[in-house]
Amino acid sequence: MKKEIPNILVVNDDGVDAPGIRTLMEAVKDLGRVVVVAPDGPQSGMGHAITINKPLRLDRVFIYPDVEMYKSSGTPVDCVKLAVNKIFKGKKPDLCVSGINHGLNQSINVIYSGTMSAAMEGAIESIPSIGFSYDDFTYDADFSACVPFVKAIAKQVLDHGLPQGTLLNVNFPKTEKIKGVKICRQANAKWAEEFDERKDPHKRNYYWLTGVFQLNDKGEDTDVWALENDYASVVPVQFDLTAHHVIPQLNNWSFDVKP
Amino acid sequence: MKKEIPNILVVNDDGVDAPGIRTLMEAVKDLGRVVVVAPDGPQSGMGHAITINKPLRLDRVFIYPDVEMYKSSGTPVDCVKLAVNKIFKGKKPDLCVSGINHGLNQSINVIYSGTMSAAMEGAIESIPSIGFSYDDFTYDADFSACVPFVKAIAKQVLDHGLPQGTLLNVNFPKTEKIKGVKICRQANAKWAEEFDERKDPHKRNYYWLTGVFQLNDKGEDTDVWALENDYASVVPVQFDLTAHHVIPQLNNWSFDVKP
Repeated sequence: MKKEIPNILVVNDDGVDAPGIRTLMEAVKDLGRVVVVAPDGPQSGMGHAITINKPLRLDRVFIYPDVEMYKSSGTPVDCVKLAVNKIFKGKKPDLCVSGINHGLNQSINVIYSGTMSAAMEGAIESIPSIGFSYDDFTYDADFSACVPFVKAIAKQVLDHGLPQGTLLNVNFPKTEKIKGVKICRQANAKWAEEFDERKDPHKRNYYWLTGVFQLNDKGEDTDVWALENDYASVVPVQFDLTAHHVIPQLNNWSFDVKP
Repeated sequence: MKKEIPNILVVNDDGVDAPGIRTLMEAVKDLGRVVVVAPDGPQSGMGHAITINKPLRLDRVFIYPDVEMYKSSGTPVDCVKLAVNKIFKGKKPDLCVSGINHGLNQSINVIYSGTMSAAMEGAIESIPSIGFSYDDFTYDADFSACVPFVKAIAKQVLDHGLPQGTLLNVNFPKTEKIKGVKICRQANAKWAEEFDERKDPHKRNYYWLTGVFQLNDKGEDTDVWALENDYASVVPVQFDLTAHHVIPQLNNWSFDVKP
């Protein structure tokens, strides 16, 4: 019996017109039937936001010939939910790829990233899912060095699947030559915010969020280390956020409740 | 030497005027100096979204006498960043409490919840942090049964601290009498979406996100079980999302990259 062609859902957070999503759909098009569902504008930093208080649009667009492509007014996570529910109509895609993000999503950025949250929503839907990001946030970034790695990693995930409850966070360094793939853990880091405080013409304050990435981790098994050493980093990610190791400790606390 | 009074940051995702945040600030006011920073409107389901593409407002409000209170145009996570950076100015609060959310954030909801993301941002800032949620999403919910538990749990966290990289997700059942506190893991569940499809006056489709909570976990050590059995659930949560157990398996994959 002939094996069915895999269905591949392509999403992102930079919007339907971003060169990163064009690169991604072209990279995976030989692996299956591609359907693209992406936000109608930039949605970076949207994390795992969903749209509850207003309705969503979902419209067919014709940007690239022969590509089944939709834009939505929703967040990256909304796009995945709409794709699964309204486009694939319950027949789950075999793979969900998100990106390629214009800008890295290594370490703690996994938490803030719309790219990774879209992939995580795919995983919550039991679809093998991967987020891809590249160390160049400009609109006209050149993603060509990423392409062979995207293909190889997507093929492995199609062949092997991924353990239930997990997805992959893949980041690519901006370098002459990517040396290979490193399986990593998420580096311990945070953003040190520096709000840029300004006054509007009415003399009221407003603030731009800016910050500096602060690495608190010298491990050579982290995504940050891999990227600094010209490797593509692959971090397996999970959405069970339970800190299981802390449960015994909390069981020793006494909650003295006075009603 | 006299011990300094703890500084307590109170945040939420339902907005500065929500009864849930009023209950929370009143519950913890005997434990230290309270500062409230909350969104200027409802931000449910915002997950870990941050505001990158537009500037933020942060303004003092005078809703309750004697409470230092600010509203922001940003997301719940923005509120925590603004509080730490512009209000506490680098002298970190000793405790961050988020909520009380109008509606539960048990199980997979931890991912979508603005309440929990605000608490997680506190934890990323190394502040002992707790998110509180109650099983009543109405605006005029009666939170009084939660109060003694909020006090007891906040006191324990102030006394013991929390392990680096972790926070607490606390949910309260709507019941005659809360039986006590259970330390739990996050139940395995998801939302099965059912988009409500409508036509606007111009005959174009739009969609409302709705869904049904789908539990795939019969464990008696989960937050869902605790809530169904009239206990307050306490789940320790972490923001290292690495699926460490999957790393060895991925190291056996071969990435056949053809440049």
